[in-house]
Amino acid sequence: MAKSPSPTFAIGVDYGTNSVRALVVDTADGREIASHVFDYPSGEAGILLDPKDPHLARQNPADYIDGFVASVRGAVRRAGKVRGFQPQRVIGIGVDTTGSTPIPVDREGVPLAMHKAFKRNLAAHAWLWKDHTSHEEAAEITRKAARSRTDYLAKCGGTYSSEWYWSKILHCRRTAPKVFDAAYSWVELADFVPGYLTGNTDPHTMPRGVCAAGHKAMYHDDWGGLPSKRFLASLDPKLAALRDRYAKQAVPSDRKAGGLIEPLAKKVGLPAGVAVAVGAFDAHMGGVGSGIKPGVLVKIIGTSTCDMMVAPADRPLPDIPGLCGIVPGSVVPGMYGLEAGQSAVGDIFNWFVKSLCPAEYGAGAAAHVNLTKAAAKLSPGASGLLALDWNNGNRTVLVDPLLSGLLVGQTLHTRAHEAYRALVEATAFGALTIINRFEEYGLKVKEVVNCGGISEKNAMVMQIYADVCNRPMKISRSAQTCALGAAIFGAVVGGAYAGVPAAQRKMTGVKPTVFRPIRSNAKVYAELYRLYSQLHDAFGVAGHKADLHHVMKDLIAIRDRVRKG
Amino acid sequence: MAKSPSPTFAIGVDYGTNSVRALVVDTADGREIASHVFDYPSGEAGILLDPKDPHLARQNPADYIDGFVASVRGAVRRAGKVRGFQPQRVIGIGVDTTGSTPIPVDREGVPLAMHKAFKRNLAAHAWLWKDHTSHEEAAEITRKAARSRTDYLAKCGGTYSSEWYWSKILHCRRTAPKVFDAAYSWVELADFVPGYLTGNTDPHTMPRGVCAAGHKAMYHDDWGGLPSKRFLASLDPKLAALRDRYAKQAVPSDRKAGGLIEPLAKKVGLPAGVAVAVGAFDAHMGGVGSGIKPGVLVKIIGTSTCDMMVAPADRPLPDIPGLCGIVPGSVVPGMYGLEAGQSAVGDIFNWFVKSLCPAEYGAGAAAHVNLTKAAAKLSPGASGLLALDWNNGNRTVLVDPLLSGLLVGQTLHTRAHEAYRALVEATAFGALTIINRFEEYGLKVKEVVNCGGISEKNAMVMQIYADVCNRPMKISRSAQTCALGAAIFGAVVGGAYAGVPAAQRKMTGVKPTVFRPIRSNAKVYAELYRLYSQLHDAFGVAGHKADLHHVMKDLIAIRDRVRKG
Repeated sequence: MAKSPSPTFAIGVDYGTNSVRALVVDTADGREIASHVFDYPSGEAGILLDPKDPHLARQNPADYIDGFVASVRGAVRRAGKVRGFQPQRVIGIGVDTTGSTPIPVDREGVPLAMHKAFKRNLAAHAWLWKDHTSHEEAAEITRKAARSRTDYLAKCGGTYSSEWYWSKILHCRRTAPKVFDAAYSWVELADFVPGYLTGNTDPHTMPRGVCAAGHKAMYHDDWGGLPSKRFLASLDPKLAALRDRYAKQAVPSDRKAGGLIEPLAKKVGLPAGVAVAVGAFDAHMGGVGSGIKPGVLVKIIGTSTCDMMVAPADRPLPDIPGLCGIVPGSVVPGMYGLEAGQSAVGDIFNWFVKSLCPAEYGAGAAAHVNLTKAAAKLSPGASGLLALDWNNGNRTVLVDPLLSGLLVGQTLHTRAHEAYRALVEATAFGALTIINRFEEYGLKVKEVVNCGGISEKNAMVMQIYADVCNRPMKISRSAQTCALGAAIFGAVVGGAYAGVPAAQRKMTGVKPTVFRPIRSNAKVYAELYRLYSQLHDAFGVAGHKADLHHVMKDLIAIRDRVRKG
Repeated sequence: MAKSPSPTFAIGVDYGTNSVRALVVDTADGREIASHVFDYPSGEAGILLDPKDPHLARQNPADYIDGFVASVRGAVRRAGKVRGFQPQRVIGIGVDTTGSTPIPVDREGVPLAMHKAFKRNLAAHAWLWKDHTSHEEAAEITRKAARSRTDYLAKCGGTYSSEWYWSKILHCRRTAPKVFDAAYSWVELADFVPGYLTGNTDPHTMPRGVCAAGHKAMYHDDWGGLPSKRFLASLDPKLAALRDRYAKQAVPSDRKAGGLIEPLAKKVGLPAGVAVAVGAFDAHMGGVGSGIKPGVLVKIIGTSTCDMMVAPADRPLPDIPGLCGIVPGSVVPGMYGLEAGQSAVGDIFNWFVKSLCPAEYGAGAAAHVNLTKAAAKLSPGASGLLALDWNNGNRTVLVDPLLSGLLVGQTLHTRAHEAYRALVEATAFGALTIINRFEEYGLKVKEVVNCGGISEKNAMVMQIYADVCNRPMKISRSAQTCALGAAIFGAVVGGAYAGVPAAQRKMTGVKPTVFRPIRSNAKVYAELYRLYSQLHDAFGVAGHKADLHHVMKDLIAIRDRVRKG
């Protein structure tokens, strides 16, 4: 039982939407020895809202700083009670965050919100990923990029999002010009934290991660980094200057941003100088924490999903329409990182429980359990229902927020748990649509590793995913894959491994339970998926003429056949 | 205040699905002076079920006989307490029933179920209208009629239903041959009751109403009555003989079937010999009780709807595809009677409350009230939702039971009362589709008179109907229009009026409250109806190629516009 004589540890710091989590991990095997969560104190559950504008979502940058200290100090203290741990044996820190969450900063990289003059100005705070105030600016960027000589959107599915960097900055320019003028630069949260930890917040020199830059700021080596000044000026002349206030070269997260500065090290109980990795987004590091590698799709299932893949960078990869992004080095350094996703998954189930679930199933978490219990008894196709999973639009492969949910097949006997199952199935069909898109462009999806609460708690959902996708569904061993992924980057920059894949082999894994497709279920779901695809294209693809007369009849025929057994 | 010196009275006897109602009416003005309801004692709420077959629904013919005695005796007794009423002043009885509800009878017209040998045989009982065991036979009849030289389905929309006369008889022949062989003939409930009351149950001579014969048994003067022996034999050789065991000429309900026989008269407290009118279906007499006349569509709204119109018989009327039936004299004698309908209306609202309504709205009747209260506050289009009203298939104009419900436009914020309103609107769009079909074939719908509980209780539903149909919605004065309609026929055969229209003018009316279309609402609903029609045709019409890509976007655009005001 003796451990190797001098174990080393890495810390992953995972900045979520409502809280930040620090996780201390043994670099030898990924064992999670202690963690601590800090809830952002500002606003509602950490989010600054505007009662007049439901699209607005901001955060207080001070929460990020306080959150680092509180979460890491807490985790280190707890780790201190574990045999073998010593703060001196912490060799590296990795950071992952939500994104695109840009923060307007001054010439020194200090967030404007920390200036007294802007303390109460919402535009001067961090623009949280789910802030949708800039949907008009996003449409404008998409339009102008389409007319541009350089295809700046080729690497992000052809559509720029209101959640992304330039949309938000442009919206600030137009609606809060004082803030815009006071901001010397805009820094992604994923870059801000490592810069702050290492004392390098100068916008020109602080390391910028290729993950945020590539996926959200249209940064790509093909066109020499950020979009040209000419293009930025076409959005607004004042935007052009920002191009020079950014690191020349964006870098992957196996690169060391610097060493932890002394005052912070003291506060959290670590030695000064611990290596800090360049930051990246949560889903990307979550992919790493789930053991992502070529052929393995990592599905991070929460309120929405992120579907991550990697592909070797030594072969050319075509642009894949409908993906959120294809960025070299954004997940595993040295490979292409590919991001897709579903706009709503857990959110749809929660919506149903909140809005359409009768009392007999209970409420809240109990309703999920009871609906699942009843739905699990149904055979595929037995409800006669089919749904589209677009209650929050469609992120991949249609990249269209102006879509909505659809349910078809209701009779006078349809019950709530049947509708619930149909919604679960719809998200599975959406997942398969993403898998198929990857495969159509030559990226084989041999297996799927899932992580996130639903994948751990709801066996029915996972079995349906296995049956619909006709592929084994594995579950990531860690329940904190994002933080684990960040810790892996900490381990790499701390010198424990030569590279990320080597670290992954030792530090990640899956649970013993694997959900394997049941042949008879997969057969019925193949029929239903054909119908789903027809609805998908009819409502989602411009100019598509569909013959849908058979859809309701086919659903009834499948239902009657399945019920007869 | 003095009434005319010797008022006379008529009794309407209304055989519903679960009970029979007798209504005593003043022939001078339709004043309803007494009524009595008798619940059928057999089975579950009067329906004999088979736990092994959800399609089966039968009734005990004895309930009809007991029900006549109990309901009429009760109503006459109550009427006795009203000044001016005397049993001797009852001049006529009219009868309406559900249908097609055929009863197998012996040579004397006695229901087989009243024979000891068949007492427990469900096939020997009355085959209630909503018995759907014979859907295969219905499809076969539709198929064979389409190949026949005579277009037997021209007058009933082109599709024969599993609810109708010959489907049920053919199913009995195939699944209960002993009952079939023992049955000398099959008599519609609407004919059986008047025959029984007047002592003429001989299948050859008992009067057969043109309403049941024309709408359900493919009876039409154009081809000399019932379908030819050759056609019936093509279904089954043994069916041919039934053609001769039926009155040669089917007649309208202003014709006297005979006089009330003494033993029954005694039991109910009326003089023997009171005139009894030929029977007809409930919706048809309900149309009469609501004051139906050319230009007025009567909408009987219950779990489903019947939409009745009449057209002068002196002008030729084209066959109208998709209608349930066009039968001369089936509603108002001397006019074409036209029947259309929606397969589910109240049933859809009840289904929603039972299956998808969260606890915060309450349950049962209270849930309807609370959902309506919340839904009434919404502007047309504000929910972004659109539904198809096909949870129980589509009766008019698609005549297709193999259709189902559809809801589109859901977001993560959609609430139950929004969905409830979308379902109400869907039934209104379905109603407008029927109106449009009538008008396309030259039958102007100038106004709509509604009856049934929903029309009296739910002002929001009626306002939505007015706005969607862009026509005033009136409500029938009587809450018991079917029984009132039957009483009108009693008054006519009793000699109080020369004909039905004259009786209607005196005995029917509408409530003072009229729901008039609100221009701004009608405008939005015209946009939504265009989208409804596109979904209607896409899912309901064979071979129809639809471009639906704009549907979700249009719903969102309308929603955002309406919400902004």
